Amino acid sequence: MTHEFLIDIFKSAVDAVDPYNLILRKLNIKNGILKLFDENESFELDLNNFDKIIVIGIGKASAKMALGVENVFKGYDFEGLVVTKYGHTEKLTKFEVLQAGHPVPDENSIRGAEKIINLLKNVNDKTFVLTLVSGGGSALVSAPREGFTLADKQDITGKLLERGADIGEINCVRKHLSRMKGGGYLKLLKDSFSLNLILSDVIGDRLDTIASGLTYFDSTTFHDALKICVKYNIEGKVKEYFKKGALGGAEETLKEKDIKSSRFKNVIIGSNYHALLGAKKKAKQLGLSPLILTDELFGEAREVAKVLLSFARGFKKYHKGYDCLISGGETTVTIKGSGKGGRNQEMALAFLSELTKNDEGIYFLSAGTDGNDGPTDAAGAMASYEILKRAYEVGLNPDDFLQNNDSYRFFEQVKALVKTGPTNTNVCDVQIVLLK
Amino acid sequence: MTHEFLIDIFKSAVDAVDPYNLILRKLNIKNGILKLFDENESFELDLNNFDKIIVIGIGKASAKMALGVENVFKGYDFEGLVVTKYGHTEKLTKFEVLQAGHPVPDENSIRGAEKIINLLKNVNDKTFVLTLVSGGGSALVSAPREGFTLADKQDITGKLLERGADIGEINCVRKHLSRMKGGGYLKLLKDSFSLNLILSDVIGDRLDTIASGLTYFDSTTFHDALKICVKYNIEGKVKEYFKKGALGGAEETLKEKDIKSSRFKNVIIGSNYHALLGAKKKAKQLGLSPLILTDELFGEAREVAKVLLSFARGFKKYHKGYDCLISGGETTVTIKGSGKGGRNQEMALAFLSELTKNDEGIYFLSAGTDGNDGPTDAAGAMASYEILKRAYEVGLNPDDFLQNNDSYRFFEQVKALVKTGPTNTNVCDVQIVLLK
Repeated sequence: MTHEFLIDIFKSAVDAVDPYNLILRKLNIKNGILKLFDENESFELDLNNFDKIIVIGIGKASAKMALGVENVFKGYDFEGLVVTKYGHTEKLTKFEVLQAGHPVPDENSIRGAEKIINLLKNVNDKTFVLTLVSGGGSALVSAPREGFTLADKQDITGKLLERGADIGEINCVRKHLSRMKGGGYLKLLKDSFSLNLILSDVIGDRLDTIASGLTYFDSTTFHDALKICVKYNIEGKVKEYFKKGALGGAEETLKEKDIKSSRFKNVIIGSNYHALLGAKKKAKQLGLSPLILTDELFGEAREVAKVLLSFARGFKKYHKGYDCLISGGETTVTIKGSGKGGRNQEMALAFLSELTKNDEGIYFLSAGTDGNDGPTDAAGAMASYEILKRAYEVGLNPDDFLQNNDSYRFFEQVKALVKTGPTNTNVCDVQIVLLK
Repeated sequence: MTHEFLIDIFKSAVDAVDPYNLILRKLNIKNGILKLFDENESFELDLNNFDKIIVIGIGKASAKMALGVENVFKGYDFEGLVVTKYGHTEKLTKFEVLQAGHPVPDENSIRGAEKIINLLKNVNDKTFVLTLVSGGGSALVSAPREGFTLADKQDITGKLLERGADIGEINCVRKHLSRMKGGGYLKLLKDSFSLNLILSDVIGDRLDTIASGLTYFDSTTFHDALKICVKYNIEGKVKEYFKKGALGGAEETLKEKDIKSSRFKNVIIGSNYHALLGAKKKAKQLGLSPLILTDELFGEAREVAKVLLSFARGFKKYHKGYDCLISGGETTVTIKGSGKGGRNQEMALAFLSELTKNDEGIYFLSAGTDGNDGPTDAAGAMASYEILKRAYEVGLNPDDFLQNNDSYRFFEQVKALVKTGPTNTNVCDVQIVLLK
């Protein structure tokens, strides 16, 4: 039964961040009054004050969010546009849908940005703009600043990655080459009133990071971007442009002081923590006593597995009060082998490979909320002493598979993969430990 | 103040497993009745039933345990022998003290074993043997079986290590080449009554692992040892001896069925968990709300740091109830640089290097209870956003030091080392997270 419990709890975590459900649960309209309910804030808006409503969805989950909006806005006119990843669309009747490249932007990413800019051209204080933001947004819409092309942006990103720049440095540079990122999108909204509903796929839920901070101010400057060019030996027109910007000759990204906070609202309607709360609720329904440990898990997957196992052992011995440990986040895998797998399956395999007979009664699952762990058709996998025994019975040694980063082929054979199919949501990964 | 709290809590953890204090707290004699108090069991023994008392200490903490015994056994005659590591002795008046090699056994390790065998030669059911076991015991006494030398044992251990054998396999082989390990010591005690007080330096506190299981049965056999020789291509007299043993021609290690449980008692009087309880008690006295997460932490130190930080972030956000997270165990460091440090300092440095402004209010300490982290004079180090700022102010980049495994030189300069001096105890490491 315990393996089934793991699956049930994980599925409840995913359900809790289903974009369609989230919109329906948190947003409704009665007598022209739009209401938003959220744990952290509630909010009302009289739609009668506006002449025009525009709904724009950007990101991998935006079509499913838009489907919710169609339902909530039944009987209301609006202009709708969704830019999502190829294949991530839904049957929408009131939205124009554009599918674009992810993780590598393509020509449709340029077209997506152009369409958005066009749609927002004539907004004014009588316009209400509802924006649906989710992960992937930064690749799906691409608006290079004048004088630069998509190829220029890709070229500099590639160079920075090669030369060891971190994600913060790369984002600083990209924001300063974009008309959308780093709050550029918010600038386009001018005096309109805007509500930005955000599904976070970023650990820590930083608004300046989700979809490269479309709807939030940027704390980095041209000066910072220039220093990064110097640090990584980047010459040419990008550096010249940053130099010009640092001297006041180009438009800065959106700054905190320039935000009119009365005219817009950013609300994170779904995040990894919401998924963990869904898991917690289900665990309680199953009669368990759950404890959420973190929604910011990070590190090398196979090492993280050891620490989670050490906590499982600790709680099994000393905290009879808690028998379900829930965590979430996003780990990394340093690939050394040639096998097939993903960070969740690798974590489950590393967990499994450390188990001994003393660990009977410890059950583990790690899986991605998007239903897609690495280049596989699984969301993740499970580990337990029973599964380890099953592996030995059929002559499989987990260490061999772990060494070859071949977690998928291992779990396929011991029938411990977690499969959900694509979920059209994404709030990173979830780990569940059950103690019996 | 918070950094001082970290130090106070850590010192209380160490105090809680001070061998001298442990003996005094848990053992006393009144009117000839020896009493042992422990959380898990209490126990009484009428010393008047015995003609002779022998006290043997084996391990790095044995001299300090013996000092406690001298105090408890004031007015009682006993024969006492302590075998400890060079420099780990105390001013003992009723014990013969022999100092021997650790971690590499030397001629004194052979002499130590001989002395023990000699001392126990004439024990009978009128003899009470009190044994004080602590980490290091397996190197400090060495009694190769007939036909083998210390060099033989070292040779095979080296070969097995080289060829990738794990610690379980190496211990199986070593136990079957030793007259002491794998319960061999317990056999020497014959019909005497024995009480074995054990200070555990092993994660999980397995009695068959601490000091190579001197006082506990062994679940591995000659057959297992032979299979290991085949697996790692070991030929020669060791393999021949195991073959002979597997056919019944040599004496097996002590087996569970051969133990007379009425004649001996193993009691773990101190372990990592006891240290964590000491930390917890102190934290409460300081007005904090502590939670012990695990006493079995393991994994690559710099990755473990990330997971502990993710938990700190999670608890800071969602569990206002707990503001002090305590864990313990023993991590590893894969050395790639040429710097100076230890696993605790490396963990603290990795923790520090991940901190951002959002992490203000998170304070971390990792340190070894033996007061000696790697080849340094520090027990460990601390991390916090304040310390990170101090580093930046003096132009130090934690990432550079981390890359070079040079944690000691980093923390020396930012004055965040934890120093206790040698503590003559050892129950692995302690990590403390404080949340403000």
